[in-house]
Amino acid sequence: MAHNPISTLFNIQFPIIQGGMVWCSGWKLASAVSNAGGLGLIGSGSMSPELLEEHIIKCKAATQNPFGVNVPLLYPNAEAHIEMILKHRVPVVFTSAGNPSLFTKKLKENRCIVAHVIANTKFARKAEEAGVDALVAEGFEAGGHNGKEETTSFCLIPQIAAATNLPIIAAGGIYDGRSWLAAEALGASAIQVGTRFAASTESSAHIKYKQTIISAKEGDTQLTLKQLTPVRMFKNNLYEKLEDLISKGTHSDELKSFMGKGRSKKGVFEGDLMEGELEMGAISSQITKTESAKEIITNLVETYQMARKSLINNDFLS
Amino acid sequence: MAHNPISTLFNIQFPIIQGGMVWCSGWKLASAVSNAGGLGLIGSGSMSPELLEEHIIKCKAATQNPFGVNVPLLYPNAEAHIEMILKHRVPVVFTSAGNPSLFTKKLKENRCIVAHVIANTKFARKAEEAGVDALVAEGFEAGGHNGKEETTSFCLIPQIAAATNLPIIAAGGIYDGRSWLAAEALGASAIQVGTRFAASTESSAHIKYKQTIISAKEGDTQLTLKQLTPVRMFKNNLYEKLEDLISKGTHSDELKSFMGKGRSKKGVFEGDLMEGELEMGAISSQITKTESAKEIITNLVETYQMARKSLINNDFLS
Repeated sequence: MAHNPISTLFNIQFPIIQGGMVWCSGWKLASAVSNAGGLGLIGSGSMSPELLEEHIIKCKAATQNPFGVNVPLLYPNAEAHIEMILKHRVPVVFTSAGNPSLFTKKLKENRCIVAHVIANTKFARKAEEAGVDALVAEGFEAGGHNGKEETTSFCLIPQIAAATNLPIIAAGGIYDGRSWLAAEALGASAIQVGTRFAASTESSAHIKYKQTIISAKEGDTQLTLKQLTPVRMFKNNLYEKLEDLISKGTHSDELKSFMGKGRSKKGVFEGDLMEGELEMGAISSQITKTESAKEIITNLVETYQMARKSLINNDFLS
Repeated sequence: MAHNPISTLFNIQFPIIQGGMVWCSGWKLASAVSNAGGLGLIGSGSMSPELLEEHIIKCKAATQNPFGVNVPLLYPNAEAHIEMILKHRVPVVFTSAGNPSLFTKKLKENRCIVAHVIANTKFARKAEEAGVDALVAEGFEAGGHNGKEETTSFCLIPQIAAATNLPIIAAGGIYDGRSWLAAEALGASAIQVGTRFAASTESSAHIKYKQTIISAKEGDTQLTLKQLTPVRMFKNNLYEKLEDLISKGTHSDELKSFMGKGRSKKGVFEGDLMEGELEMGAISSQITKTESAKEIITNLVETYQMARKSLINNDFLS
């Protein structure tokens, strides 16, 4: 059996990471993924430090396997979250949306394994210099916040592989074993699956949000708000209003105040499909049902093995 | 040796198609690609029927292998081009940007093999109904005209594979053997390479345009003009002017008149890097030199075999 650098790094059975999404990924989802042999992540972006502590404690009780916390570094609670992570000796941290040199040293000194999310080679190199253990290469396809360059997984993964020596976790556009195998062919060692887990049984998202993922078709998500921070969302009423403002040349400050606060909570957690921000990835159009975390992991492994066998048998050149 | 449906269909050695790009792909490039074992395409979109005839005659004289013509169906010369193709018994036609039922029957009755370019499943099904032999699945990464849904190769290929029974040629984001293998993992049987051939020795594009491809970095191309027909181009002076107009809420008619005619010729063929439209794909950032068509094909095959061997050896699950 060959060695997989990400399975070894995180001490997990399958190199499958669940995205630490706001309002979706509490202890229930994270522990279910970790119990099924992947790496579950608690999404701290929507939590206070106290709530995060509660989720860490419950996650520890629900699984004996490694799990992690995702920390968006630009959020005001980031530092308090890092303290909570260290207090409870969470084995893995995924940092995103910020400077990787902020906490990496401290985390590593405390034996925490650190992965950092990037969307271009410049930040990949910065993260490598900061000493992180792995990179999440987030393609244009991914839901939620994304890079300004709009580099897709097809173009991003080989460029990151060429620019750094770190193992790469591919995120954005990953639905099943075929996309997993494709990511591997491009130079990734593992995958991060977001939206499919956001629609899972154990996701704490509102049922109406999950149903929106399931019913979404091609072209139903779009990267917008490029004037502020680009974000991929479902094209609902809020999106249409936003696009209307943007097409009229509205200033970014006005867009900011139009968006206000709590739009993701409203959409993802409270199920307000009209006025909420429904962050989701482009692969929503491939998701057709709500599955348990275990079913998703099993399906990923099975379809990966099928895709692999098919590729090996289809040796038309040699 | 396993069977490859696209190699068999076109009677070619390698399932590698060269994109039929305007102002790049005359008889020189097409015949060089066909002589190297791929399928060369003459890009008729920038030609009068008489010029196309000249290129077909020269291409026939320069290669004994099959080659084809790409016909954008929305261009005024499409019908005259089809007549020229039939007159000279060109074995393969790639149609794009229009209704596949227009000419497919006539072409097939004349023993021409037809592939049609699509960017979503709706048009993939339409093309299958029209009787085409193969589909080009064009992802968001591709240079030039593109779909409104912004579906990337990662998301598009498996959806097209699920929606139709036709063999799929993946276009957009294909640079080397790794992206070729990734496309295959996702369900494609072949690849279409555009920008790398646009920068090749045999491409009829201006040297300054080729140098722009070679010097392009991540995020240097962008899909724009979504109000008219979305097109991916290099972010030059023309692009900045366009974006400025768009951000001010300029009406699509005004954008059209601002663009005027002959912008691609100006950019790609005449090398006006300021005012010309420099259509190119997102993988421009991976292209580092001008190579001959033969070198590109050889490199594609070699890196494909390396990527395949590496994937097969890296069997971490079984």
